[in-house]
Amino acid sequence: MAVKKDNIHRTGGNGRRSTCVSHKGLVYFSGITSVDLEADTAGQAQDILAQIDKLLSINGSDRNHILSTTVYLKTMDDYAAFNSVWDMWIADGHEPARTVVGAQLALPEYRVKVELIAAEVD
Amino acid sequence: MAVKKDNIHRTGGNGRRSTCVSHKGLVYFSGITSVDLEADTAGQAQDILAQIDKLLSINGSDRNHILSTTVYLKTMDDYAAFNSVWDMWIADGHEPARTVVGAQLALPEYRVKVELIAAEVD
Amino acid sequence: MAVKKDNIHRTGGNGRRSTCVSHKGLVYFSGITSVDLEADTAGQAQDILAQIDKLLSINGSDRNHILSTTVYLKTMDDYAAFNSVWDMWIADGHEPARTVVGAQLALPEYRVKVELIAAEVD
Repeated sequence: MAVKKDNIHRTGGNGRRSTCVSHKGLVYFSGITSVDLEADTAGQAQDILAQIDKLLSINGSDRNHILSTTVYLKTMDDYAAFNSVWDMWIADGHEPARTVVGAQLALPEYRVKVELIAAEVD
Repeated sequence: MAVKKDNIHRTGGNGRRSTCVSHKGLVYFSGITSVDLEADTAGQAQDILAQIDKLLSINGSDRNHILSTTVYLKTMDDYAAFNSVWDMWIADGHEPARTVVGAQLALPEYRVKVELIAAEVD
Repeated sequence: MAVKKDNIHRTGGNGRRSTCVSHKGLVYFSGITSVDLEADTAGQAQDILAQIDKLLSINGSDRNHILSTTVYLKTMDDYAAFNSVWDMWIADGHEPARTVVGAQLALPEYRVKVELIAAEVD
């Protein structure tokens, strides 16, 4: 799954995208969606953030080292529901830059997609 | 408001997001929206770009050092109105890479949101 | 067309945006759209990826060094059509982090817009 060339380390490649790409101390994430298509927005957010915790760990980072994130919601009506999970997950003093917008996602069941850039722990 | 750890310098943190995050010479911005909810798109753009000027200055950068920006408009019908303000603000020879798309924003009054990555002035 | 200051190298500037901005080994792209407004999604994708190949080459990179990409589709109904072109273009072991969402684009004829961050070849 992992390929390293030219200082680029790719994990989770499937011929279309890598889940994460590391390069010179930064980790770029693909937009992560939930595997639980029946969950509501809060449930999908919890699943996504748990996936992100694991992926950050695999890539030498953690949630305290996220620099920037973009969150796509199926509908901004779910903004408060997403934030209720997010705000518990992110620690004070470690908040990334963040943008949240509403956008159409790949499956109608998807309610949230989260992409981010994190720094490796020095 | 400012926290520095592991070469990461966060400003404007509110438990949810930092307004800006600096790391190794780059400054990552949250999506910036206008405080003037009654302004039209041009007015909101002017307010947002004035906020960005201040935030860039606080973070050791300026509008001539923006590398990349993503602009979200409530409706692409406002593309020309946004550009009328943007084109005056950005100097020839200092244009960032830019993407503009239409997307749903957090409040119905928001007509524009701007996020960017800038380089600190060497 | 090219301006270099403070380690920032901008190409394709038009007073509004640069097509590409290079800084310390990374190349930031504007969202690229097709010049063929009559093409379908697959045709526009082919045109866009051919443009990106040229722009990467001009900027000292290539498709094997893309770190992260965001793809905006006019409608996610075109997801499979876009992927049919993308999957042929991207080589196994070189997949970037990728996010695809549906969003309104600047012209109604645009069906695809692709932005990306690439590493220069060492």
